Amino acid sequence: MRVLIPDLPEFRDIKIPGIEPAYYRADHLPDGDFVGVVAWGLPRALRSRVLARPGLKWVLTLTAGIDGWPDVLPPGTALYNAHELHDAAVAQHAAATLLAAGRGLIRFAQARHWERRTAESRPLWTLKGRQVVVWGYGHIGRELDRLLAPFGAHLTGLRSHSTPQEIGAALKEADDLVLLLPLTGATRQIVDHDVLQQLKPGAWLYNLGRGELVDPAALLAALDSNHLGGAVLDVTDPEPLPDGDPLWGRPNVLITPHIASTTDDMSQRAADYAAGVLAQLARGEEPQNKVELGKGY
Amino acid sequence: MRVLIPDLPEFRDIKIPGIEPAYYRADHLPDGDFVGVVAWGLPRALRSRVLARPGLKWVLTLTAGIDGWPDVLPPGTALYNAHELHDAAVAQHAAATLLAAGRGLIRFAQARHWERRTAESRPLWTLKGRQVVVWGYGHIGRELDRLLAPFGAHLTGLRSHSTPQEIGAALKEADDLVLLLPLTGATRQIVDHDVLQQLKPGAWLYNLGRGELVDPAALLAALDSNHLGGAVLDVTDPEPLPDGDPLWGRPNVLITPHIASTTDDMSQRAADYAAGVLAQLARGEEPQNKVELGKGY
Repeated sequence: MRVLIPDLPEFRDIKIPGIEPAYYRADHLPDGDFVGVVAWGLPRALRSRVLARPGLKWVLTLTAGIDGWPDVLPPGTALYNAHELHDAAVAQHAAATLLAAGRGLIRFAQARHWERRTAESRPLWTLKGRQVVVWGYGHIGRELDRLLAPFGAHLTGLRSHSTPQEIGAALKEADDLVLLLPLTGATRQIVDHDVLQQLKPGAWLYNLGRGELVDPAALLAALDSNHLGGAVLDVTDPEPLPDGDPLWGRPNVLITPHIASTTDDMSQRAADYAAGVLAQLARGEEPQNKVELGKGY
Repeated sequence: MRVLIPDLPEFRDIKIPGIEPAYYRADHLPDGDFVGVVAWGLPRALRSRVLARPGLKWVLTLTAGIDGWPDVLPPGTALYNAHELHDAAVAQHAAATLLAAGRGLIRFAQARHWERRTAESRPLWTLKGRQVVVWGYGHIGRELDRLLAPFGAHLTGLRSHSTPQEIGAALKEADDLVLLLPLTGATRQIVDHDVLQQLKPGAWLYNLGRGELVDPAALLAALDSNHLGGAVLDVTDPEPLPDGDPLWGRPNVLITPHIASTTDDMSQRAADYAAGVLAQLARGEEPQNKVELGKGY
């Protein structure tokens, strides 16, 4: 079967019996029809041209989120994602930032002066006994739980079927609130003034989901009032966060430029993953990570 | 038995049958003799006056290092330390900094601008497959191994009986070199130009032992030449690191002010630990953490 594949060295190495590759670049879409497309750095403009070709049966997206695809896929077209490719790195990134907050690494990285401990110093903690609430508990949340358990952290997961009572109880106890929710109509600005006020004074917020999960004005107010102990944002609203935004340069705010799942060997890992899925499809097997269209994630 | 105890609220709560507490402050040493002393924030000047009293049988030091004590203790006086009190926090701090280096958190904490990924961007990694060498592998090293194993890191420990061949082989393979050595005549400036050159280009150095383990000029040269990927220093030489030192403000150098074992509940944890040791001594038992005097650590 003919499959659209990114024209990158790592993907050029993929040789699967039964798969006839056709390589695309941002500025080049091969002629003819395709049974499937491996989407990796596929520009929006190219996407609509791919979807216009007849015969497309499936899309394998290698990015972490699948924003957009469910809305544009013709009925009957299957969507596969690649969460395994990103879960481990995002979980390690989340663990890194939870530890960094506790050990004061954000302010120490900014310092040019040896801070002496005083009673007025900002607190330092380890993760032992820390109540970590993961809102959007799925593959990444489970991996984060596995990573943090040896540190003595207690993790509570909130899922789409958690009740308002369960959510309220978890928020009240949280020392660290980690957002891993997908962005849907129901989750847009789900972290608003009211949710932030339910957190204990001094709690930290970590957004590794999508920037629009958080009301930016409420976040800023909760930081300015010192109700929040601090915030770690891998995603922002707007994104990229503009120069001069009041979130920059604070000793208790860490902004990373949407790199939670990034590692230098990412393209190679993506190509290896794609090769495995293509081999399954070539053998007529159903790959594991089929997206349930209609749920929005 | 009469025991000198710090005059702090957490220690005032200690009530052990058979232990008669006498409380000291930096400006006040009670009269009379003491069988033992719980050293916690004991100034040097007071230390010599304590040692001059007859009848002193043991010292329990609650600090992480024991620098100095072995040199001044009269023969026959036992020294106990409290490494459990510090091991877990130091190991968590070390894990935090290894992860922070990989996820770019030092430079991102300093940034006031959204960094776009380019081929020229500094690398990002997770700990999966990372070769971590711990030089001075003891209680903290074992705890660090336990914490990092779920991340997929491979830890190699070097101990006082490691051969030069073993040390050389480990240094050559290290992605991250973590110093947890005690400071002795044999370890002073053990990390010199030659050792740094044995590391792979791009390797990171973490010093959580004592500042004098590292030759400061060699460290600076290895950073300036980009041979070292970066450095994390919880201890420095000199310490505190002076304002204006060329190590401050670099995107790949994290300096924390000797707080690897610090947590806000430290005094309470120290008092709880001391209470346990005092109970053992009151029952005539030998506490576990007796320092072998003569080894220097």
